[in-house]
Amino acid sequence: MTGNDQRATDLARDDMRPGEKTVELPMRQDAHLLFIGRISTPWKSRDECPRQGKHDGPLCTIEVFEPWQDALRGLEHFQQVEVLYWLDRSRRDLVLQNPARDGTLRGTFALRSPARPNPIGTSMAKLVEIGEGRLVVQGLDCVDGTPLIDLKPNRCEFTPLAVMKPGKGKAE
Amino acid sequence: MTGNDQRATDLARDDMRPGEKTVELPMRQDAHLLFIGRISTPWKSRDECPRQGKHDGPLCTIEVFEPWQDALRGLEHFQQVEVLYWLDRSRRDLVLQNPARDGTLRGTFALRSPARPNPIGTSMAKLVEIGEGRLVVQGLDCVDGTPLIDLKPNRCEFTPLAVMKPGKGKAE
Repeated sequence: MTGNDQRATDLARDDMRPGEKTVELPMRQDAHLLFIGRISTPWKSRDECPRQGKHDGPLCTIEVFEPWQDALRGLEHFQQVEVLYWLDRSRRDLVLQNPARDGTLRGTFALRSPARPNPIGTSMAKLVEIGEGRLVVQGLDCVDGTPLIDLKPNRCEFTPLAVMKPGKGKAE
Repeated sequence: MTGNDQRATDLARDDMRPGEKTVELPMRQDAHLLFIGRISTPWKSRDECPRQGKHDGPLCTIEVFEPWQDALRGLEHFQQVEVLYWLDRSRRDLVLQNPARDGTLRGTFALRSPARPNPIGTSMAKLVEIGEGRLVVQGLDCVDGTPLIDLKPNRCEFTPLAVMKPGKGKAE
C-alpha cells in the first residue's frame, strides 16, 4: 500500500459515527504553515498508533530539514521537548464527536482527537539523543511520516533568557 | 495607536540583534490554518507581556467564533486547558537568536521565543469559567487580540475515551 493509499484509508476511517456533528468550513485561509521536518515512528496507520505516547515507549526519530537545522542549537540542555506536528490525515469539520461509539457526544475541544479545525498535535517527548538535524525521542503517538511543524523546550524546565523589561524588577 | 500601528511597531522590534542568523524562507505553503477565536488579555503590546503566564495571573478571556462553539461541550470537566494561538506579530526567519542581547546564541527550537518558522504559541491555562462560546482562564502571556487556533484538554488529566483497538487488551 502506498503512502497515499494509506492516507485515503485513514480518511475514510473518519466517516461519521452516530450523532456526530460537522460544520461547513470557511473557505478562507488565515495563516499558512511550513513543514520543517518529518517524524518517523513504528506506526504505519492511525489504527496502529497508541492513544497516548509514553516516555518508556518506542524510540521515534525526528528529522529536521534544512534550512532549520541550526535552530536545534542548545536543545540538548533539555530533557523534554514539546513537539508540534500536523495531523494530515484528519478531517477538520467535526465539532461534536462520538469517540467511544456509545452515543456520548463530546465537543472536539474536550478531546485530543486528531479531527479538529486545525489538526495540530502536541506531545511532550523525552529527548534521548540529538545529532545533526536529527532527534531521537520517546513519548510520541503519531503515524509514521507525520510532518513536523515546531519544537520547543519543555515550559516547566525552561527559564526565559530574554533581557529585563523596562519597569520590571527582573525578567519574568 | 491603532492595532495595525502597534503590529508594525512590534515587528520593527524584531530587528536583528548581534549575531542572529536568518534563513530565506521557502515560498511554499504546506498547510493552512483557520483562526477559530480571539484571545483578550491585559497586554496591548509584546513589550507589556509577561515572559511566562502564571496560574495566579490576570484573568484572560477566550472567545470562540461560530461555527465552533459546540466544540466546547465537555471542556468544563477539565481544570486545565491547552491553548494554541498564532503569534501573528513574529518574524519567521530566525534560526539563531540572541535573546539576552549578550552575544550568546541559541537555536530557535531551544527557545520559546515567538519568532519561529511556524509561530504557534502553546500554554497550559487554568480554566476559571466557561460559558456560551467563551472561556475565562489564567496563565496566558500573549498580546491582546491574539488569534486562537486550538483548545485541548490537558493531556495529564485526560483519559482517552475511544474504543478498544483490535488486537489490544484495552484502550491505551
